[in-house]
Amino acid sequence: MISDIITVIAPVNIAVIKYWGKRDEDLILPLNDSVSATLDTNVMCAKTSVCARQDLIEDEIWLNKEKVPFSNRLQNCLKEIKARAASENSVDPIFLHLKIRACSENNFPTAAGLASSAAGYACFVFALAKLYKVKSDISSIARLGSGSACRSVYGGFVRWHAGSKPDGSDSVATQIADASHWPEMRALILVVGDKKKETSSTGGMAVSVKTSELMRHRVEYCVPQRTELIVDAIKNKDFPKFAEITMKDSNQFHAICLDSYPPFVYMNDISHSIVGLIHKYNEISGKVKVAYTFDAGSNACLYLLEEDVSEVISLIKHVYPPSNSKGFVTGLSYVEDVNSKILKMFQPKDKDLIKYVIYTKVGDGPSEVTDGSHLLNRDGSLIHLM
Amino acid sequence: MISDIITVIAPVNIAVIKYWGKRDEDLILPLNDSVSATLDTNVMCAKTSVCARQDLIEDEIWLNKEKVPFSNRLQNCLKEIKARAASENSVDPIFLHLKIRACSENNFPTAAGLASSAAGYACFVFALAKLYKVKSDISSIARLGSGSACRSVYGGFVRWHAGSKPDGSDSVATQIADASHWPEMRALILVVGDKKKETSSTGGMAVSVKTSELMRHRVEYCVPQRTELIVDAIKNKDFPKFAEITMKDSNQFHAICLDSYPPFVYMNDISHSIVGLIHKYNEISGKVKVAYTFDAGSNACLYLLEEDVSEVISLIKHVYPPSNSKGFVTGLSYVEDVNSKILKMFQPKDKDLIKYVIYTKVGDGPSEVTDGSHLLNRDGSLIHLM
Repeated sequence: MISDIITVIAPVNIAVIKYWGKRDEDLILPLNDSVSATLDTNVMCAKTSVCARQDLIEDEIWLNKEKVPFSNRLQNCLKEIKARAASENSVDPIFLHLKIRACSENNFPTAAGLASSAAGYACFVFALAKLYKVKSDISSIARLGSGSACRSVYGGFVRWHAGSKPDGSDSVATQIADASHWPEMRALILVVGDKKKETSSTGGMAVSVKTSELMRHRVEYCVPQRTELIVDAIKNKDFPKFAEITMKDSNQFHAICLDSYPPFVYMNDISHSIVGLIHKYNEISGKVKVAYTFDAGSNACLYLLEEDVSEVISLIKHVYPPSNSKGFVTGLSYVEDVNSKILKMFQPKDKDLIKYVIYTKVGDGPSEVTDGSHLLNRDGSLIHLM
Repeated sequence: MISDIITVIAPVNIAVIKYWGKRDEDLILPLNDSVSATLDTNVMCAKTSVCARQDLIEDEIWLNKEKVPFSNRLQNCLKEIKARAASENSVDPIFLHLKIRACSENNFPTAAGLASSAAGYACFVFALAKLYKVKSDISSIARLGSGSACRSVYGGFVRWHAGSKPDGSDSVATQIADASHWPEMRALILVVGDKKKETSSTGGMAVSVKTSELMRHRVEYCVPQRTELIVDAIKNKDFPKFAEITMKDSNQFHAICLDSYPPFVYMNDISHSIVGLIHKYNEISGKVKVAYTFDAGSNACLYLLEEDVSEVISLIKHVYPPSNSKGFVTGLSYVEDVNSKILKMFQPKDKDLIKYVIYTKVGDGPSEVTDGSHLLNRDGSLIHLM
């Protein structure tokens, strides 16, 4: 008994209200709501092929061409999808007894604060949902893999509701608005370092919950207010408001990391110089045109509107000059604006402080790949290991 | 009519519970209590000579050999000291009508987060108190110059009480214990940068008070608890407790800076690497032997006990090797411990990340200089300008 090969892609999401701190470690239930934008899978995505086969003696997974242990988190996702399939009666029960083989890849650096685990688990769970023909909301299952993965299950702007039930059944993601609602929204990812971070998100947030005296105030007062405000800003397409809340919430998340004991930092001197650049640019521009946000790593994600992309990319190249301009900006196409008067108001810094820039936009949720570009052969063997 | 030349020295103090945020900008009244240790004037001090002369048409001051405007803050201190002298009937009232000339120097870098203004204003006010024979507590007058200057008016361990009166009369410093109470206490100042900081303390704390949503929680809940705990730790000479609170409060102060909008940072990558080093050293040592604390700058101040100084200085030289070892550590004398097994557990970093180290200890408050080494000649002219 051998299933078809199912192949899907899933997007990265970058939070504007940050998830930091769990109320339940096993069920991955957060202390607060979070909000993110889902980014275009044409630029950055995870891709997963999966099949179920009678000849497998255990569940197997390859990640970026390496076989890795089929972790508890992967098992939890698989178990819950199968339970859902059983309750939906979506496949022959015998089919649920077969072991699976999965193969997953990201087209961007893993674990450098680029939300790779969110895309990866969303992809894995979405592939399983296709394999087992599950029709209901799978965000709470993706959440079991990596909290923020639940937000990558939908496109556009997404809210992950913390929920309050002990079993986590109300800790799900919902779409605030789809990608077509605010088509001008763009994102620039400034890759500062692509080495693996020192403090994992999981480890860091556990330390924060246990030790940061400021954490509770953030969770109880700051985030609930900000979440309502940013949802309104998204619905009203109020960019300055959206940007201000995004920047404040990023800063507060990193403040909580510093208030933890022992403290840990994800932003470095280059990250902070980007923060300074954006504030100065907004001030000179006379309005808030760009927002920065930093996840658990030194890379910046800038949100901005399409009309400002040319100037901002030119500004970044001016202030952080690359040794080799070719390939410095990848992703969507753009036109440079090297004659902008604003560039003259900024001094260039040392070369190569920013390694490369990914230019992308808000996009749709996961989708099945129908062009046959699987990561597994029809016989279940791995394409990349052939 | 010409007064004698009065010359005094005053110490630096480094806070372990940080002062950050004013409830009154003009009277320099803080939002929370703070606690500091006063450092030995034999190693670091401000020195001020002052005289009153009939032939002066305005009050004058030279700071580090440059004539600077006699600012509002200086005027406020002078006015209050004169008012106090009048109420104490300590000098002939005619004498209070003379203008003064002051000359002040620091033997360490100004405004690089090394508490230079605290020592400077404490010195200026203490000199005036001697000139006008004021006997009562002058900490509230030093406070009018620079908030933390009030703590440099006493030696040993000092608490600045925030007070609650609108006129600030209860916002004074008191001594928790004198320098002889805990004679083993030592301090190492690691000078990372000696350039002037980008965000002044005054400017930064105003932004924090106005914008940081976490600030109020710090002021209302965290600091009051910590202050009581660290006063007890000082009284009981409980170093691990003293050190833990010191580190947590430093981190929280910098977290508040990051939570401000726009955010600002004083610590840089080198500062954070020192934080990492101290936590690792304490962990390997099996007990908390060293505490770090950072003011509004990138320099670290380490508190530790005399018995650990040799090993810690050797560790710093090992991890942050200087190009030129000579003069790298100034201040008190010490013996190196280059054979400590612990050094092998740390990788050296790039050279010259730390510029120099000042080794000092907890010391006494301001005192009058009696060896005749004035900064002004008997005729009122400046010694260094001759």
